[in-house]
Amino acid sequence: MSTKGKTITCKAAIAWKASEPLTIEEIQVEAPKSHEVRVKVEWTGVCHTDAYTLSGVDPEGAFPIVLGHEGGGIVESIGEGVTNVRVGDHVVLLYTPECKECKFCLSGKTNLCSKIRETQGKGLMPDGTTRFTCRGQPLLHYMGCSSFSQYTVVSDISLVAISPVAPLRSCCLFGCGITTGYGAATRSAKVEKDSVVAVVGCGCVGLAVIRGAIDAGAKRVIAIDTNPSKEAYAKRFGATDFVDASKVSDLVDYMLKETDGGVDYAFDCTGNVEAMKKQLQFCHKGWGKLCVIGVAAAGKELSFRPFLVVTGRQVLGSAFGGVKGRTELPNFVDAYLQGRFMVDEYITHEVVLDNLNTAFDYMHQGACIRTVVKMH
Amino acid sequence: MSTKGKTITCKAAIAWKASEPLTIEEIQVEAPKSHEVRVKVEWTGVCHTDAYTLSGVDPEGAFPIVLGHEGGGIVESIGEGVTNVRVGDHVVLLYTPECKECKFCLSGKTNLCSKIRETQGKGLMPDGTTRFTCRGQPLLHYMGCSSFSQYTVVSDISLVAISPVAPLRSCCLFGCGITTGYGAATRSAKVEKDSVVAVVGCGCVGLAVIRGAIDAGAKRVIAIDTNPSKEAYAKRFGATDFVDASKVSDLVDYMLKETDGGVDYAFDCTGNVEAMKKQLQFCHKGWGKLCVIGVAAAGKELSFRPFLVVTGRQVLGSAFGGVKGRTELPNFVDAYLQGRFMVDEYITHEVVLDNLNTAFDYMHQGACIRTVVKMH
Repeated sequence: MSTKGKTITCKAAIAWKASEPLTIEEIQVEAPKSHEVRVKVEWTGVCHTDAYTLSGVDPEGAFPIVLGHEGGGIVESIGEGVTNVRVGDHVVLLYTPECKECKFCLSGKTNLCSKIRETQGKGLMPDGTTRFTCRGQPLLHYMGCSSFSQYTVVSDISLVAISPVAPLRSCCLFGCGITTGYGAATRSAKVEKDSVVAVVGCGCVGLAVIRGAIDAGAKRVIAIDTNPSKEAYAKRFGATDFVDASKVSDLVDYMLKETDGGVDYAFDCTGNVEAMKKQLQFCHKGWGKLCVIGVAAAGKELSFRPFLVVTGRQVLGSAFGGVKGRTELPNFVDAYLQGRFMVDEYITHEVVLDNLNTAFDYMHQGACIRTVVKMH
Repeated sequence: MSTKGKTITCKAAIAWKASEPLTIEEIQVEAPKSHEVRVKVEWTGVCHTDAYTLSGVDPEGAFPIVLGHEGGGIVESIGEGVTNVRVGDHVVLLYTPECKECKFCLSGKTNLCSKIRETQGKGLMPDGTTRFTCRGQPLLHYMGCSSFSQYTVVSDISLVAISPVAPLRSCCLFGCGITTGYGAATRSAKVEKDSVVAVVGCGCVGLAVIRGAIDAGAKRVIAIDTNPSKEAYAKRFGATDFVDASKVSDLVDYMLKETDGGVDYAFDCTGNVEAMKKQLQFCHKGWGKLCVIGVAAAGKELSFRPFLVVTGRQVLGSAFGGVKGRTELPNFVDAYLQGRFMVDEYITHEVVLDNLNTAFDYMHQGACIRTVVKMH
C-alpha cells in the first residue's frame, strides 16, 4: 500500500535535551509539501557536528530535534513542483543546499546557497513548520537533513540523485565528511601541483583533505595528529609524513625547519583556535595559505599578528569543501564507482539504528574514523 | 671634481634616539662597495612607517639611524659588478628589493625578495657593515634606503631606474605609499570588475587603494575615515561614497545594510586591529576579502571567529602592494607621464631638508596626505 500523501510512522533517534543520549522512538513524518521530498533513509554517518550540537554548546542548537546530516536514502514521495528527483531515486542529503538561483549560487564564487538558510538555521522547513512529531510534540529538523530518522522530509534543493548502483552505505558519507575534506583541498584552497601540504587532525575530514591534496598533485603531505594511531590511516590515504604533535615541543619551529620555511597550505581539521594559529605561523611567508575547516567552539576566536598576512600568508576557510552538492556530487560518486575515489576506507564501524548512541562513543575513540548507521 | 670612490660629506637627518626630533647634521657617506650604488637623493617622502620607527615602538627599530624610505634620486656612482643602473640614472629606492633569483622572486607568488632581508632588518648593508658615520660614529641604514640623507648607499637590487624625464619630486612616492595602495588593490587582492570595495583610512595609501580599485573597474568604492576632511580627498581620487566612521554607531551593521550583505573587498589602511576585525565582519559572506595593509602596533593581534572564514571570507595582506619594484615601477612611472596615473595629487606639503621634522608634524594633521622633502 502506497504511503504517498500519508503520514508515516517510523523509528528515529531523538535528541530531547542537550547532553543526553538520544532515544530511539516512533515518530510521525508528514507527507512532503510543495518543493519538498520525503526520503527513506537507508544509511547515515555520524559526524562531530552532530555531537557538537548534542553537547549543547552550539549556540544555534535547539531541542527536541532529529539530528543527523550524512544521509543516503531513496525517494519515497515528492511534493508538488518537485522536478529534480523522482520516486525511487537514490539520493544523498545536502546540508549545504544548492538552489541555483540565489545571489550566492549565481555568484560563481561560493557554494553557500542562501535560499533556505534562515529556516534551516531554526530547524524548520522553508514554510516555517516541521514535519516531525513524537507523541504529538513537534520535533525540529537538523541542518535541513535529519538523517537519524528512518524517513525524513527535506527541501528539494537539499538532496541530489546519484547513480542507483552506488552503495548508499558508503555514499552517505559524501553528505559531509569526505566532500568537506576533499573539496577543501581541491576547491576551496585549490592545492597546486608540487605543493607541500600540512593536514592537522586526521579524522574523516582530515583524511579526505589528504586524498584531495594527493589528487591535486601535492608532492608532500604532512599529516599531524596528537594520536599516533592515526599514522597508519594517514599513510593509507596518501600522507607522505606523519608528525605526532604530542611528541614535538615546538610544532611551529619543527615545521618551519622540516619544510624549509613553511608549508604552502595548512588545513585545520581540529576546530582548535590555538592549533589554527600555529598552522598560520608555519605557513610559508609570501604565499602559505591556512584553510580552516574545523568548527571552533562557541566564543573562540582565532588571533594572530597581522604581520603574518601582510607578509603574504592568507587565511581562508571551507564549508562543505566549497562543493556545490547538486552539480558536483554525482561526479564524485561516479569517480568512486570507477575506483578513482576512496570511500569505503573511511568506514571503521557500523551500527544499527537502535544502537546509534554507540556511534558517539566510537567517535571519541582514536580508532574510529567513521561509523555508519543502518537505518532499517 | 668627481666624487667617485671617495667618501662624501653631506647633510642628513639623523635619528639618534627614539621619540626625539631628528637632527640635521653633516655625515660621511662611504663609496659604494661591490653590488652597491651611491645615490644623490633629490626628494624623499615622509611616511607613517618612518614615524613608527622613530617613535620607538617598532620592535626592529634601532638607533642611531638615518630614516626615510620614499626616495627619488640620481645615481652618483656604482660599485663593482653593478649592471642594472648607470651613473646619472634617475632612480627610485626600493625598500622591497627584487633580486630576481631567490626562492621568493622565482616563485611567481610574491614580491617579498629574501636576498638581503636579514641584513636590511638589522640596518646594515649586505656585507654586514654601514656606509654612514657621523662624528666617527656609525649610523644604521633604514629599510635598505635611508633617503633622509643627501647621499645614500643602497644595494643594487634596492633601486630601479625610471624615465629621466619623470619629476623625482612626485616619483619618490612610488617608493612606498602610492605603490603600496595601488598594488594592494590591483595586485594583492586583485579587485574584480563591478566589485564593491571599502577602503578604511584615507591617507596616501588609502587614496592609492581607491585609485587602484577604480582602475580595476570597481563599481562602488566606499571610503571610510574618522576625519571628515578626508571626504574631499577620497572623492577626488574616485571614491563613490564616504562614511565618517566617527558618526556611525555600529559600522559593521551600517555597512552590511548599505551594501546588501557586505563588501567584496575591504582594505585596512589603519593598522588598527579592532578596525580590521570590523572590516572582516562587513565583508560579504561567501567571498569577501579583507586585505590588511596597515602595520599593527607591536604585540597587537587581529582576532575573529573562524566561522567568518569557514563561511567564505578571506584574510590576506599586502606589502609594497605586491609590486615587484624593478620589474613594475618603470611602467607605473610611464603611466604617470602619460597622464594615466595620479601622483602629484598626493602631495599636500613640501619642506626642505632643514625642516624635515616639520613633515612629522604635518603628518599628524588631517589636512596632510604626503609631505615631500627637497633634499638639496
